[in-house]
Amino acid sequence: METYLYEQFLEVLGKEKISKSESELYRHSRDESSHPYVEPDFVYFPEGVEDIVKVLKIANEHKIPVTPYGAGSGLEGQAIPIHKGISMNFDNMKKIIEFYPEDLMITVEPGITRLQLNEFINKHGLYFPIDPGADASIGGMIANNASGTTAVRYGSMRDQILDLEVVLANGTVIHTGSKAKKSSSGYNLNGIMAGSEGTLGVITKATLKLHGIPEKVLAARCTFNTPGECAEAAQAVLSCGIQVLRMELVDAESIKQVNSYGGYAFPEEHSLFFEFAGTPNIVEEEASVVEELMKEFGCSNWERANTPKDRADLWKARHELAYSYKHIKGKASTGADACVPISKLAEMVVFGRTLLEESGLIGGVFGHVGDGNFHTMVMYDPNDPVEKAKAKYTDDQIAMKAIELGGSCTGEHGVGVGKMKYQLKEHGEAVELMKSIKLLFDPNGILNPGKIFI
Amino acid sequence: METYLYEQFLEVLGKEKISKSESELYRHSRDESSHPYVEPDFVYFPEGVEDIVKVLKIANEHKIPVTPYGAGSGLEGQAIPIHKGISMNFDNMKKIIEFYPEDLMITVEPGITRLQLNEFINKHGLYFPIDPGADASIGGMIANNASGTTAVRYGSMRDQILDLEVVLANGTVIHTGSKAKKSSSGYNLNGIMAGSEGTLGVITKATLKLHGIPEKVLAARCTFNTPGECAEAAQAVLSCGIQVLRMELVDAESIKQVNSYGGYAFPEEHSLFFEFAGTPNIVEEEASVVEELMKEFGCSNWERANTPKDRADLWKARHELAYSYKHIKGKASTGADACVPISKLAEMVVFGRTLLEESGLIGGVFGHVGDGNFHTMVMYDPNDPVEKAKAKYTDDQIAMKAIELGGSCTGEHGVGVGKMKYQLKEHGEAVELMKSIKLLFDPNGILNPGKIFI
Repeated sequence: METYLYEQFLEVLGKEKISKSESELYRHSRDESSHPYVEPDFVYFPEGVEDIVKVLKIANEHKIPVTPYGAGSGLEGQAIPIHKGISMNFDNMKKIIEFYPEDLMITVEPGITRLQLNEFINKHGLYFPIDPGADASIGGMIANNASGTTAVRYGSMRDQILDLEVVLANGTVIHTGSKAKKSSSGYNLNGIMAGSEGTLGVITKATLKLHGIPEKVLAARCTFNTPGECAEAAQAVLSCGIQVLRMELVDAESIKQVNSYGGYAFPEEHSLFFEFAGTPNIVEEEASVVEELMKEFGCSNWERANTPKDRADLWKARHELAYSYKHIKGKASTGADACVPISKLAEMVVFGRTLLEESGLIGGVFGHVGDGNFHTMVMYDPNDPVEKAKAKYTDDQIAMKAIELGGSCTGEHGVGVGKMKYQLKEHGEAVELMKSIKLLFDPNGILNPGKIFI
Repeated sequence: METYLYEQFLEVLGKEKISKSESELYRHSRDESSHPYVEPDFVYFPEGVEDIVKVLKIANEHKIPVTPYGAGSGLEGQAIPIHKGISMNFDNMKKIIEFYPEDLMITVEPGITRLQLNEFINKHGLYFPIDPGADASIGGMIANNASGTTAVRYGSMRDQILDLEVVLANGTVIHTGSKAKKSSSGYNLNGIMAGSEGTLGVITKATLKLHGIPEKVLAARCTFNTPGECAEAAQAVLSCGIQVLRMELVDAESIKQVNSYGGYAFPEEHSLFFEFAGTPNIVEEEASVVEELMKEFGCSNWERANTPKDRADLWKARHELAYSYKHIKGKASTGADACVPISKLAEMVVFGRTLLEESGLIGGVFGHVGDGNFHTMVMYDPNDPVEKAKAKYTDDQIAMKAIELGGSCTGEHGVGVGKMKYQLKEHGEAVELMKSIKLLFDPNGILNPGKIFI
């Protein structure tokens, strides 16, 4: 960035809200993915919507890229300022603006993380159920349309949004919805902002749906001989209308990994993990119906847990899955995030498992089986180009296969820089329309450029 | 339309697919609303996506308006070809393209109605739960983001869409989604097509989520002294996480109307109607929890029904509500469709009731209380300008008040021509963005012109 421009930003934005320190530039050059690091020209810490209007007006005039940065927990490089410019950090925008407990609704700033949000509302008997694993920022979760283990019951982030305050590239502030739980008024801007990864506007406030904390949560687990049997059994649960809170598939290889990592003795077979939530009688009934169903489908090792402690123990193999791989020294990880029609899940899991075995790399397959969304975790030596290429090859093959089966290259991680190459294959002619929407919202291409579209 | 153009359409589209008969022109001049009738130049009955590409290419070249027509059951004039041109009727596009029972998913043409769809899938133990009352076409329901009494559990039409095949104004055919249950890939075109009322593209196929038919449905009813008490009690049900299938408010005046219409003796008080769905044990538990809760809130006349016959009888007052008003001779009806945060519902219901009383017109208040969506039904003599003005005044006041309370002028009926005047008040600066989206999708303004935006 040219000096006169940087000085203009300093003057208008205030030097106390700007950082060029080495550590901040480094922190904002990356996320949790292995995509190449790029440092921004500077990091900006806005404190409210007015600050964001200011920075966008100048950036838009001079065509300076602006890349929003939440908690840095993204997995596809969405927060990496690959064309440099300004990284916009929301650490100073974490306020709860208004809490409406009687409406099961809250308005927050985008920098607040999901655990911070839950810490505040849990005291009032409410919770925000979307759980992507990481303690991501709410703004980042909206921008990526994040979801995770509870999506089978609550849907994705898109489904939680009532209204967003958004600053457009030219500095105009709009609201994308209202406080009504449903509406048929105007075009659905909530939906298009969710998952737009900071490329269409900057989210400055979000009004979200909340839910009552279930009176009771009950966990259970069982095993099957093949991943395909797991997927079929999971399908049967959905068909009979049981509204599980979570339903997760973990393959035998991953259970072995967890056992060896933590010294556990979980049955080393393909497993389904369940959580049920509601009144004590409802969860009891749901668990019984599912137990009966699983046994009809030939499961083994059905086990259930009622107390929070037992539940945590029972789910350990699922919870520690990522760590059990990630602790392997000298290895980096990558992984697929495909989503397919549920009837194709068994085929995909076998496909993924076979690819992993052919590659000779360490890795596992696990998934949000109620949504047809599944992941691989593949470990490779980042300094070994052959291992790296093999790891990327598995990701690539899985994304392509998912699209061929009518599914999506990304169920919840987003496109970022890693999934750009699949957009045309997945969306066909619609990509041109999407690009023209991008151009309409951001004619100068300043909002998180270099993401989503090649 | 000029003769040479009409002849071009005849030649390209085939005269057997075109009608200018008086009865067809009349049928396509109107919907269920009281908005002024306008006849199209001709009615076109396409038989597939190729036919729609053909007509849009010529229409786009010559700037001829094209207005999709489903079942004609809309309530805001969406299907009225107010700038004349072509009315496109989907009676010959009702096919089930592909049925995926194991994925709880189906692909249909847009002309099929929701009852026709259910007739097909019910045999397989599945159902499509969205119930706006009328036997609307699926295409029309998507275009208006319809919902109704089951939205409290299943959401609106937007939430049911996996993928749409859409023909854009220039004849390009795109897909807006995939068969994956969730996705973070590309911009959310499913969402923006839902509720766009035929102004952004023509839906030619829809892939929708299905649900298992609940093993048991149980109905119940109780009464309260004020509409406010009904709303508060309904809020408590939501807060405790009970996933009711339906939860409806009907005010005392409307119960009286039903009693006098059908010779019933329902308690003439403000009433809440419930339906619970699931396994027998779950609905039993849910009904018991809600009964206890309602009694804590001071309800009277708690009554429940288990058999389909009893359930139908119990819900009669709700089901026959519209007819009980509409049978009044010499009267036309109009009504509000406001949606507000649930904590404001009591205030809105009292506001609506007061307006009705001040107007001196016959009418009732009822609502989908779990969503904060409520309707009035106001009867007036269409030949009496004073009555007509009074009726429209109540609609207007309710829409404005809903927006002032942070809500929406339309929860489920859509904008059409009737709610255009509230768009700026509800959406503010976002209206300009919406208009530019319209211009991007449809630069020649041929797709259902004169709707949504003034």
